[in-house]
Amino acid sequence: MIPKSFFKQNPEDPKPLKHIIKRKVRFDELDPLNIVWHGNYASYFEEGRIAMGDKYGFGYLDFKKHGVMIPLKKFYVDYIMPLEFAKEYAIETLLYWNESARLDFEYRIYDCENRLVTMGYSVHMMVDLNKGILVVKPAFYEKICEKWKEGKI
Amino acid sequence: MIPKSFFKQNPEDPKPLKHIIKRKVRFDELDPLNIVWHGNYASYFEEGRIAMGDKYGFGYLDFKKHGVMIPLKKFYVDYIMPLEFAKEYAIETLLYWNESARLDFEYRIYDCENRLVTMGYSVHMMVDLNKGILVVKPAFYEKICEKWKEGKI
Amino acid sequence: MIPKSFFKQNPEDPKPLKHIIKRKVRFDELDPLNIVWHGNYASYFEEGRIAMGDKYGFGYLDFKKHGVMIPLKKFYVDYIMPLEFAKEYAIETLLYWNESARLDFEYRIYDCENRLVTMGYSVHMMVDLNKGILVVKPAFYEKICEKWKEGKI
Amino acid sequence: MIPKSFFKQNPEDPKPLKHIIKRKVRFDELDPLNIVWHGNYASYFEEGRIAMGDKYGFGYLDFKKHGVMIPLKKFYVDYIMPLEFAKEYAIETLLYWNESARLDFEYRIYDCENRLVTMGYSVHMMVDLNKGILVVKPAFYEKICEKWKEGKI
Repeated sequence: MIPKSFFKQNPEDPKPLKHIIKRKVRFDELDPLNIVWHGNYASYFEEGRIAMGDKYGFGYLDFKKHGVMIPLKKFYVDYIMPLEFAKEYAIETLLYWNESARLDFEYRIYDCENRLVTMGYSVHMMVDLNKGILVVKPAFYEKICEKWKEGKI
Repeated sequence: MIPKSFFKQNPEDPKPLKHIIKRKVRFDELDPLNIVWHGNYASYFEEGRIAMGDKYGFGYLDFKKHGVMIPLKKFYVDYIMPLEFAKEYAIETLLYWNESARLDFEYRIYDCENRLVTMGYSVHMMVDLNKGILVVKPAFYEKICEKWKEGKI
Repeated sequence: MIPKSFFKQNPEDPKPLKHIIKRKVRFDELDPLNIVWHGNYASYFEEGRIAMGDKYGFGYLDFKKHGVMIPLKKFYVDYIMPLEFAKEYAIETLLYWNESARLDFEYRIYDCENRLVTMGYSVHMMVDLNKGILVVKPAFYEKICEKWKEGKI
Repeated sequence: MIPKSFFKQNPEDPKPLKHIIKRKVRFDELDPLNIVWHGNYASYFEEGRIAMGDKYGFGYLDFKKHGVMIPLKKFYVDYIMPLEFAKEYAIETLLYWNESARLDFEYRIYDCENRLVTMGYSVHMMVDLNKGILVVKPAFYEKICEKWKEGKI
């Protein structure tokens, strides 16, 4: 089963970018119920997002180098099944196409038996050093988007 | 301006329960942008929720005493403005009426100038010790709900 | 019983400054053993240290205003008894006299029955904006130290 | 330079067990100074300790299976240099020989240029399910220690 996306897409939009990393549940992420405390998924999603940014050249440091920060506007998690201590899991991160100066990330976490255990999304604005909200994408990211549209990344 | 609720309510439903606590931003909650890291709002909301539970008698330990856990099913945050180091803020927690064995919490965080800086919600299931999902509210919580309906709390 | 200090003092040194704050164990601080995870005491000690700094005028923001940061050099915790969910506790912070440009903090955590549950210390250097280590105290802090020596704070 | 150990050893004691893992600094571990917040080293050390336990068969879950918990008694960190965002580092964990029912772990963190950036230690007691302190090692761990003494692990 392929989970339905949180973001609406037009038929002509390029397919979302996708990246997967694997991690293992840490002891300090557990709560008294012996499962990952719900708030820690913000950290999991962020790890997936950062790994994707590093891969495609639009990571936190890439944006920072160009004087842009990408604070969150919205954050959502849907908890399907819990994760337990020392369990391995995969974080699948997807970036959905958006014409605006905005980043629409989706996350799907799978356990070691490949069951979907958590889904979520985060929406990020782009902000300059004076905390002004960007209305157009910065040039370096626009270039990446062009390649993305041409199917070259 | 009163923010619109995330939860649909019927006209005959009792009004949401409400509780406010005040806190101060801690150093270890900050990120390199010198604002509260977005993932920490899970902790802020939880503090609000726990304080409300303590006040009305349906806290984590009350449910636990009756063999019930209340894991999260959904979690959402809308970031409006950032919070900075040492700033005081208020967490307003609301519990919305629900006929089902489910808890619908909403959160509104206000800064020291009473501006709404964050909104969010969490939806909790009720689960017994065998991890079975409850379909009716446990008796102790049902009693609280009856009083709530009668406007006695 | 007054616990022995971690720091050596000379008989002519002014008495340590002392400050006490009260807190309550949060759910997200617990580990699967249902006690506060050992790493969270860094946060507890920091809360005590910051509250003391605010009281006496040498807090994080005071140092920052004068272009000085106070990173940790050493950190130690002695775990005597665990703390459980929702328990109230007191953090006693002491600052020991030191002629050098260095901050020697000691922490004692007491539970709601006034039993000593944790002790620890942190040693901080003073560093300027170029990350150079200060060898003399900044003027604003030297003034506070003079008052301290004269018993006026 | 080989750093001096925190633990006294006798000449006839078996050499410490050693294990190394590699990690990368995460965004949510940073503080406003753009370096890893000092309290996060408790998590780094724990990761090293858990990886070593998994390798040698005396991990958290191994102890738990035999009804034994290993809470911390002491914890110490010496901060030598800071770690920055996205930097890779190695956590070297050492377990020192101890005749008693106690675990003496030492940690050394090296940056990507192999410079020692942090050292520390943790001392753990062994406790049974009734929270009684063990005076002899549990049988499964004693067996591991015998092999260790014979140089077979």
